[in-house]
Amino acid sequence: MLVSQSAAFVTMLQAAAKMLSVVKTTSVSRGILLSIRHYCKKTPAKLRVSEAVSGAELGANVKVQGWVRSVRAQKSHLFLHVNDGSSLQSLQVVASSELNDPLLTFGSAVEVTGTLKKSPNQKQPVELEAEQIHIVGECNPLEFPFKIKERHGLEYIRQFPHLRCRTNAFSSLLRIRSEATTAVHSYFKENGFLQIHTPVITSNDCEGAGELFKIEPSGPDYEEEEHFFSVPAFLTVSGQLHLELMSGAFSKVYTFGPTFRAENSQSRRHLAEFYMVEAEVSFAQSLEDLTKVMEGMFRSATEHVLAHCAEDLDLFHKHVTPGHRAIDILNRSSENFAFPTDAAAVDLLVPGVGELCGGSLREERLDLLRARLQQYLDLRRFGSVPHGGFGMGFERYLQCILGVDNIKDVIPFPRFSHSCVL
Amino acid sequence: MLVSQSAAFVTMLQAAAKMLSVVKTTSVSRGILLSIRHYCKKTPAKLRVSEAVSGAELGANVKVQGWVRSVRAQKSHLFLHVNDGSSLQSLQVVASSELNDPLLTFGSAVEVTGTLKKSPNQKQPVELEAEQIHIVGECNPLEFPFKIKERHGLEYIRQFPHLRCRTNAFSSLLRIRSEATTAVHSYFKENGFLQIHTPVITSNDCEGAGELFKIEPSGPDYEEEEHFFSVPAFLTVSGQLHLELMSGAFSKVYTFGPTFRAENSQSRRHLAEFYMVEAEVSFAQSLEDLTKVMEGMFRSATEHVLAHCAEDLDLFHKHVTPGHRAIDILNRSSENFAFPTDAAAVDLLVPGVGELCGGSLREERLDLLRARLQQYLDLRRFGSVPHGGFGMGFERYLQCILGVDNIKDVIPFPRFSHSCVL
Repeated sequence: MLVSQSAAFVTMLQAAAKMLSVVKTTSVSRGILLSIRHYCKKTPAKLRVSEAVSGAELGANVKVQGWVRSVRAQKSHLFLHVNDGSSLQSLQVVASSELNDPLLTFGSAVEVTGTLKKSPNQKQPVELEAEQIHIVGECNPLEFPFKIKERHGLEYIRQFPHLRCRTNAFSSLLRIRSEATTAVHSYFKENGFLQIHTPVITSNDCEGAGELFKIEPSGPDYEEEEHFFSVPAFLTVSGQLHLELMSGAFSKVYTFGPTFRAENSQSRRHLAEFYMVEAEVSFAQSLEDLTKVMEGMFRSATEHVLAHCAEDLDLFHKHVTPGHRAIDILNRSSENFAFPTDAAAVDLLVPGVGELCGGSLREERLDLLRARLQQYLDLRRFGSVPHGGFGMGFERYLQCILGVDNIKDVIPFPRFSHSCVL
Repeated sequence: MLVSQSAAFVTMLQAAAKMLSVVKTTSVSRGILLSIRHYCKKTPAKLRVSEAVSGAELGANVKVQGWVRSVRAQKSHLFLHVNDGSSLQSLQVVASSELNDPLLTFGSAVEVTGTLKKSPNQKQPVELEAEQIHIVGECNPLEFPFKIKERHGLEYIRQFPHLRCRTNAFSSLLRIRSEATTAVHSYFKENGFLQIHTPVITSNDCEGAGELFKIEPSGPDYEEEEHFFSVPAFLTVSGQLHLELMSGAFSKVYTFGPTFRAENSQSRRHLAEFYMVEAEVSFAQSLEDLTKVMEGMFRSATEHVLAHCAEDLDLFHKHVTPGHRAIDILNRSSENFAFPTDAAAVDLLVPGVGELCGGSLREERLDLLRARLQQYLDLRRFGSVPHGGFGMGFERYLQCILGVDNIKDVIPFPRFSHSCVL
């Protein structure tokens, strides 16, 4: 249907709509009425599902876009659940059964226009009374690897790295991961730490550790002998060196990004690419200066996730990893957070996860340092100060608060030996 | 001086202090008095320089730690400026000349204890009246590459990648970079985008583009033929593919992290490792759906930096890159932000910087796609939706708002052909 934008045409449609609205609507007249309404009203506001289910927009004419999570056709009515990833909750859509379509399947993408109404359902107090349902993208439910109303395990969904974000479990995980990331940054910012983007590529080979990845250009013109960077270059295993030198100007610095190990392991504990939070504090004189920061970060991130991802956490606690509650871990952590292991180092070990955090006071005295790098020595020559730092494996943190066994289930795109999918 | 913590000892000291405080203080008695005060008072609060200069703690007994930026000894008084990287401003320290020491040099690290006072100086309304100055780390001013009261150019300081954070220009840059990073994340969060950690290591070779870095383990046991990941693996050139698949569950997603090009160029425009902001929006139907996001991000990041880094920006505008003002760029951007180049793509070009942002609507129709990846095709089979996205080079953004010519000056640790220092 082509619609002219002219005022005359709209006036005509408005008159027709008024006329039709007093007639007892037959299925045909109702269809016409809805089409006309669609063009007469202001463009409906586009809402995310999380905004729609909040109840703040009751009575509003809205448009919601997302993916069908359930379809139930009754004689006179059609019920859909539509999810757009903005929250675990889906929006219930109620439509006349005339709007049903065989292409409205689990997994299909839809755009629904209608009015937000109070629902008689206690669990879902808001529903969308649909005037129009547009199927944006089809989905053959026989080919789609996830089945309606089935709760697939983490191992099953891990086989579909490109689609697992369409499941409740993994989309909850990614929302929690995103919020925890925000919380870590907020904690450091509020406590006067400067964020440093430490490099992924480094020439520092950390005393020849065997588990480094080396990098070189892949092009055909490239000759192995002449390194691209003039020196051998590797993927970083830690931003500590870079943070140490920055702490000599900013006192408190941190970094949060990917680090790498070429560890030939398929175990549930190891990834070749994983995220680390690392911090460095100048003028630190005791381990307590570090453990205070470690504990503060852990508490504040976990409290933030508890406050902002209650539903998503609940899904994990009830269905994905039952019996494992983040709030219990937080409470236990306040009793005995850190376990000093010698005079100047500290580790935080978590059952089932391993070392979550490791920190130490650094050696700041020039004459005791055996580092080969001139730059590293320079740092101690020009205004050296006692300092210390720590690192926390971010995936291990997520495993810890969620009770997830396999580290591959808490990172969007896991990389490990023999696997680099996508 | 060894001090017992016993209450009796403290009481005795308090009495002595009271007695001494009514005696006209000679240099010796003053020294004793200060030492006694030091042990009698509560431990002085540790303050950052930015907190001290704010004036909120006037009258308080405090401890400030940082690096000496200037030393001026008069007959009776010693004046220092101490900077700890928390802001561009340094704290003026005033001490009796008895506290002077030949080791109090430009660049040395100090811990100063004393009382915050109102200063007669209009430009620096707060000063620290020092009771004690402890030299934490020495600095030989003849060997230190930066000289007191000299304004070194960006090219000069670039030669000292491990120390350039000790200069005003580069520490300002890093504070601005950190704030701009925060602002980018805030913008996306406030607008309902989920942050995705897209991988650095990828098996997607982007149709064999020649400028990829390949990665392999560096250990001696490793044989070239059997790839660590079973397939050839590369450093990512873009997170677009990963974002596209995530946008099929969350509607709006973004990533902000390092990307890589093995471009054999020493030009002022190219880095081998640089940061990109990339976003992907589902149900996008026109370029305007993207340009709105691009413009929103640009405006909101720049406004945040203007509001939170006024002094640091001012330094750039006045001394580092004179004549180039972020506010002017922001104002101009509101007149004509984006320049569509064809039916479905948009680029934002900035004079002197090049392409800052590039975006396009993606091809969502299955039968038109020629991608070889089964996964990529799957994305179009199961609930495909029209979508689009864009990427912005973060270093180019910083160059743009700061007027910095060389991209190596806006990243903490630049990597480019023949250079991977630290």
